[in-house]
Amino acid sequence: MSRLVLKFGGTSVADLERIENVARIVKREVAAGHQVAVAVSAMAGWTNNLVELTKGTGFSEGFQEYDTVVSSGEQVTAGLLAMVLQRQGVSARSWLGWQIPIQTTSAHSTARIQNIEAEGLLACMDRGEVAVVAGFQGIGPDGRITTLGRGGTDTSAVALAAALQAERCDIYTDVDGVYTTDPRIVEKAKKIEKIAFEEMLEMASLGAKVLQTRSVEMAMVHGVRVSVLSSFEDVPGTLVCDEDEIVEQEVVSGIAYSRDEAKITLIGVEDTPGVAAGIFGPLADESINVDMIVQNISDGGDHTDITFTVPRADLDRAVSVVEKSAKSIGYKRLSQDANVSKISVIGIGMRSHSGVAQTMFRTLAEKGINIAVISTSEIKISVLIEDQYTELAVRALHTAYDLDAL
Amino acid sequence: MSRLVLKFGGTSVADLERIENVARIVKREVAAGHQVAVAVSAMAGWTNNLVELTKGTGFSEGFQEYDTVVSSGEQVTAGLLAMVLQRQGVSARSWLGWQIPIQTTSAHSTARIQNIEAEGLLACMDRGEVAVVAGFQGIGPDGRITTLGRGGTDTSAVALAAALQAERCDIYTDVDGVYTTDPRIVEKAKKIEKIAFEEMLEMASLGAKVLQTRSVEMAMVHGVRVSVLSSFEDVPGTLVCDEDEIVEQEVVSGIAYSRDEAKITLIGVEDTPGVAAGIFGPLADESINVDMIVQNISDGGDHTDITFTVPRADLDRAVSVVEKSAKSIGYKRLSQDANVSKISVIGIGMRSHSGVAQTMFRTLAEKGINIAVISTSEIKISVLIEDQYTELAVRALHTAYDLDAL
Repeated sequence: MSRLVLKFGGTSVADLERIENVARIVKREVAAGHQVAVAVSAMAGWTNNLVELTKGTGFSEGFQEYDTVVSSGEQVTAGLLAMVLQRQGVSARSWLGWQIPIQTTSAHSTARIQNIEAEGLLACMDRGEVAVVAGFQGIGPDGRITTLGRGGTDTSAVALAAALQAERCDIYTDVDGVYTTDPRIVEKAKKIEKIAFEEMLEMASLGAKVLQTRSVEMAMVHGVRVSVLSSFEDVPGTLVCDEDEIVEQEVVSGIAYSRDEAKITLIGVEDTPGVAAGIFGPLADESINVDMIVQNISDGGDHTDITFTVPRADLDRAVSVVEKSAKSIGYKRLSQDANVSKISVIGIGMRSHSGVAQTMFRTLAEKGINIAVISTSEIKISVLIEDQYTELAVRALHTAYDLDAL
Repeated sequence: MSRLVLKFGGTSVADLERIENVARIVKREVAAGHQVAVAVSAMAGWTNNLVELTKGTGFSEGFQEYDTVVSSGEQVTAGLLAMVLQRQGVSARSWLGWQIPIQTTSAHSTARIQNIEAEGLLACMDRGEVAVVAGFQGIGPDGRITTLGRGGTDTSAVALAAALQAERCDIYTDVDGVYTTDPRIVEKAKKIEKIAFEEMLEMASLGAKVLQTRSVEMAMVHGVRVSVLSSFEDVPGTLVCDEDEIVEQEVVSGIAYSRDEAKITLIGVEDTPGVAAGIFGPLADESINVDMIVQNISDGGDHTDITFTVPRADLDRAVSVVEKSAKSIGYKRLSQDANVSKISVIGIGMRSHSGVAQTMFRTLAEKGINIAVISTSEIKISVLIEDQYTELAVRALHTAYDLDAL
């Protein structure tokens, strides 16, 4: 008998009517002969209300009590879904993080799952019960409730699928799959039938916000096949799987964009050994994530310009960190720009195909879009452009790589 | 160093402003040199919202999942209060029922506390931390969350006080103490300075809804001194304690009333052995609580009339149970009356004073109030009267026993 883990996010369990609908999906999988575990989020809006309450105390996330408060939302959903399932004649029980237990690190609000004791869940499922697991939560080494960060229920679900050796982890959400790009920008965006873990990882971290990045990493590490499905429409979704399972590999699978970046340029930096460490060391110390970096040798020879990107939310902090270390670095001028956008072309197939980058550069040039920074990996090419050209660039690239639906 | 347990109900923690106020009270006790544990209820309205949600599933209380859902309200308050205390510079942490643990029976929604492991709490308090305990909840033998029934946080607080060998349990509520009778009926009702456990038990179970009855029983058994105080006004409250601690014992301490009763009379019951068992056995089987019972021998000699009271909410069910067993009982006619009220005069001093009952009967007679049923215990005389005379009777008795405030 094969096991399935199903995950339902906040909009899928927003009220009792939707929870009834979720129960019908669960019931269908049980009827199909599967052993089923379900990971649920808090009802849409519930967590935000709890977060507002905690803000009123003057605390924000990262504290033990914060996690104790906000984790209660998933507890409510898990109990309600178990009741609705029982009402529909499906044997079920709720499991809270500490009851399983789902052991995590002690980093409150950003805890990572370290171990899931699967025995209790497996016994429950062997008895024919659906295990309804409160997502987003675990228990830390000190016995306090921890939470996994926003979108953490995706990670809960994938970790459960790994621990239960499930055949598949079905992530039910408010979209019906992963698209070649954002359908709000490109009307002709196509749903992708199968996508490799590595590609999905790039799509997720680059702003295609279907799955929490960490859940994709975990799925890749443990080889958990993840299906992204709509909880509102009964249509085929997207399977995220090992690349070996994808027979017809596209050269480019999708176009992602991110407006969460900002650009900092240091002009006239003294070109001496250790200067990069002098800039990026202090930023790393402040936990500011530097993404793209380019360095141009100025024609003088003893000075250089360095451009890099940081998360837009960290821009002010990053500028002040750099300015503080100005003396040790030695540069003439700092310029900053929050009106930038990162456009990425992603595809496992580009490992074995040349000319992919050239198509990107030519397409953008034809539209008169200037490229500020370029960075590449084995399966991705990213460029930084002016924010205002985002939609134009994405649409042009989608067409250029033959991704438009017919 | 003496330990205190403080309890705050739903209206005392209804919003963040009130939680700040609670934190100030806690801080004051800490500053006075006490080790403090706090038991909190859910924010006013919160539990009702959760109960409404569970009702939507078609389930009501008594189920494991119900308790999982409704217990989340206290979890939120405990976390919030711990945060507010920390913000005010008071070291504090929240404790959920399962974290302590507070071990209970498995009777979901009406669980009874069986044991509290105090080691963790004591270590916390010895470190100078305020232990903020989520009230109303515990953990059953199967590791599931249990709840203690409405008003259960009173019981949590008293049980904690017993386990921690606290000097006192301060129950902060929206009234400022226990009164000689309901101040809404008798303007001249006086606040009682000290009341014996036994008296409070009669007051509580008879409708003076200040403390959950079970919490008073527990306080009596474990000798926990309980103070009833207002969380809104800083005025002396009422101490519930052993009668030995009360120097000037009043003959009558208070007048209680209850409109939750209904009367059933069986007329022309065959007066044979076993007839009482034939009536009350089936009612007990249906968990219907029979309170007052009187039996009059009819003048014929072989028939009798039996009158008894049941909770008003159970009247219809009780009538149908009695009618079902009509054949085996053998009676002529059944009459029922929901428009009755039970008036009780309570006082430990009446053990050693005569004439207390006589004063009651005379006072009611003077007002032309007919007594339908009488029942007495060592420290209480109760009569059943027509509902419409409730206020008149309570006022007249309050004056007759010299309870009116000057």
